Amino acid sequence: MKFELQYTLQGTKARAGKLQTAHGEIETPIFMPVGTVGSVKGVHFRDLKEDVKAQIILGNTYHLYLRPGMDTIEQAGGLHKFNGWDGPILTDSGGFQVFSLGDIRKLSEEGAKFQSHIDGSRHMFTPENVIDIQRTIGADIIMAFDECPPGDSDFEYAEKSLGLTQRWLERCVKRFDETEPKYGYKQTLFPIVQGGVYPELRRRAAEHVISFERDGYAIGGLSVGEKEEDMYSTIEVVNEILPEDKPRYLMGVGTPINILEAIDRGVDMFDCVMPTRNGRNGMLFTSEGIINIKNKKWENNFSPVDPNGTSFVDHHYTRAYLRHLFQAKEMLGAQIGSLHNLAFYLWLVGEAREQIKAGTFKQWKNVMIEKLGRRL
Amino acid sequence: MKFELQYTLQGTKARAGKLQTAHGEIETPIFMPVGTVGSVKGVHFRDLKEDVKAQIILGNTYHLYLRPGMDTIEQAGGLHKFNGWDGPILTDSGGFQVFSLGDIRKLSEEGAKFQSHIDGSRHMFTPENVIDIQRTIGADIIMAFDECPPGDSDFEYAEKSLGLTQRWLERCVKRFDETEPKYGYKQTLFPIVQGGVYPELRRRAAEHVISFERDGYAIGGLSVGEKEEDMYSTIEVVNEILPEDKPRYLMGVGTPINILEAIDRGVDMFDCVMPTRNGRNGMLFTSEGIINIKNKKWENNFSPVDPNGTSFVDHHYTRAYLRHLFQAKEMLGAQIGSLHNLAFYLWLVGEAREQIKAGTFKQWKNVMIEKLGRRL
Ligand SMILES: [Zn+2]
Ligand SMILES: [Zn+2]
Repeated sequence: MKFELQYTLQGTKARAGKLQTAHGEIETPIFMPVGTVGSVKGVHFRDLKEDVKAQIILGNTYHLYLRPGMDTIEQAGGLHKFNGWDGPILTDSGGFQVFSLGDIRKLSEEGAKFQSHIDGSRHMFTPENVIDIQRTIGADIIMAFDECPPGDSDFEYAEKSLGLTQRWLERCVKRFDETEPKYGYKQTLFPIVQGGVYPELRRRAAEHVISFERDGYAIGGLSVGEKEEDMYSTIEVVNEILPEDKPRYLMGVGTPINILEAIDRGVDMFDCVMPTRNGRNGMLFTSEGIINIKNKKWENNFSPVDPNGTSFVDHHYTRAYLRHLFQAKEMLGAQIGSLHNLAFYLWLVGEAREQIKAGTFKQWKNVMIEKLGRRL
Repeated sequence: MKFELQYTLQGTKARAGKLQTAHGEIETPIFMPVGTVGSVKGVHFRDLKEDVKAQIILGNTYHLYLRPGMDTIEQAGGLHKFNGWDGPILTDSGGFQVFSLGDIRKLSEEGAKFQSHIDGSRHMFTPENVIDIQRTIGADIIMAFDECPPGDSDFEYAEKSLGLTQRWLERCVKRFDETEPKYGYKQTLFPIVQGGVYPELRRRAAEHVISFERDGYAIGGLSVGEKEEDMYSTIEVVNEILPEDKPRYLMGVGTPINILEAIDRGVDMFDCVMPTRNGRNGMLFTSEGIINIKNKKWENNFSPVDPNGTSFVDHHYTRAYLRHLFQAKEMLGAQIGSLHNLAFYLWLVGEAREQIKAGTFKQWKNVMIEKLGRRL
């Protein structure tokens, strides 16, 4: 994988780049829609490509491993062939999902034992088999298996957890380097920086990951309950250390404001379920602020969903109609909300890129952040 | 509204025509996707137009009257403006829904009292206000308010019910002719032929409706539990009497086989929830037979959903992937199933039209009917 840093901006860490993968080019900063089980909820891949203008999507190792399972994925020739998305795919390592299982998982040096949320069957993830699974899925970008400690972890727990993540990373890298891709195209492995909200741990973690000289690095364990200012300062601490010439991926973040703040601090890649989850619930992000479309105030508002929106749903449907769909619990409402929000997120990162190129990012960001937080 | 009979076929009653409405032309035979609350479940209007190639959709008076309600629809400027579908719309009269309410409705000469299934509020439909409501909805084709007796009604009940339907029709026609469209374009009223499975009643009903000399006529009260051969013979009895030069609409029917049999007997227009409802449940109609996509046999079948299909979902997704979506209860599965089935229904009636034009309908129909009933 090749990353080209195309534009940087004086007085900020914001940058625009281009990432080459076996399944195509990605212009950064970029947002990656989440396709949990290989499907971005409520959105056809055609619309994801042509309307949302997604350049890369994310798949979840935990979910795909359980269902449809690796036999099916491998017989299909990988996830791209299975789901029909022929652009780049990144898979998470499954760690985050497994740790969310609470009572039905058990952590050890070896890995994580867990029970399927579907049928209670018992499984184990290890750094090694998680790499193997992602080889089988055929993701362009594979994530290391890590432990993501809760946002309120104390130093002692965060440090102990980081130690485990670091030993697991060594095993992940070893396994990755010993194995070959299964479908004839290159894959790459991104290590993940953990360490809670403790600058000392984050620095230690960042120094450790770069020692492996991979094609890109991720910042994990944020947006998990910590304060927002801790998230931003942690990004700053980490990005001081991560190399300039490699892409930086902030995992599972976040709101449109979070994303602009992180771009300002040198992050290139994002994913989050927020646009689809909130879209399914009638909460729309727009360049003028947030719309709760279920609100009675939209009942007789026949203006388009989002006059500034970039997707067909923004102009084709009215706010009153979209509200009606949510009132009537019609699935088309969730489809429109999801597609709108994803298109907005992709517009936001694309516009950030343009503003970085033009040298106007900082001013634009300040105006946007004020608008993005408003309730319409 | 103008109907032009373009092709008829020796030795069959099958015909192809063209229907002009204020919102565009409809080539018959045609299938009308059902948009219960103004939304065809799971399908964007853009896809309905460009992929399904729907030429007219159906709205439900009962549902739209309760939600969003006539205030909103009228403020929007009618249903077309409200939901963004700018093609022709037909609305049912609400009678069928009200009579399905069972205990919470009460019938009288005046009309039907009922309680909302949403909030229990009390309402009354009369022939007059049902016309007014459809004027407000702005449907291109308005249906008369009728009683649809159960499929197993005895002669006495069916006859009594027909009497009521006939008196209601007189009131509907009177109200329709006394009122004006609200949005500057012409609307038309179709009477409905009832009479259960009793040829004598159906003949009486057909003679009665044609005395009003409207732009088209509907056959109601079929596919409600009667035997299939009774449905076909009833269509024959009625179409002997309905004029050749007016479109005939068979309400709420049915399977692909039902549709071909009805076309053969001179029907021009159809609607049914079957393609969307079954599509949402993973039952796909194809030109080679029926697919239950949830079946384990499709688990590792990576051929396209329907190699002969006319929509993008048929070629873009594999059977294994679609099955996986249903297993994982992903809404995209329901979206694909609905879009596929609607596109198939529209293909079926379009192909029937081509075969009628070419003079080969009868042979084609026989081959198709054998295939359509198969389980793949
Ligand atoms: Zn998130
Ligand atoms: Zn039906």
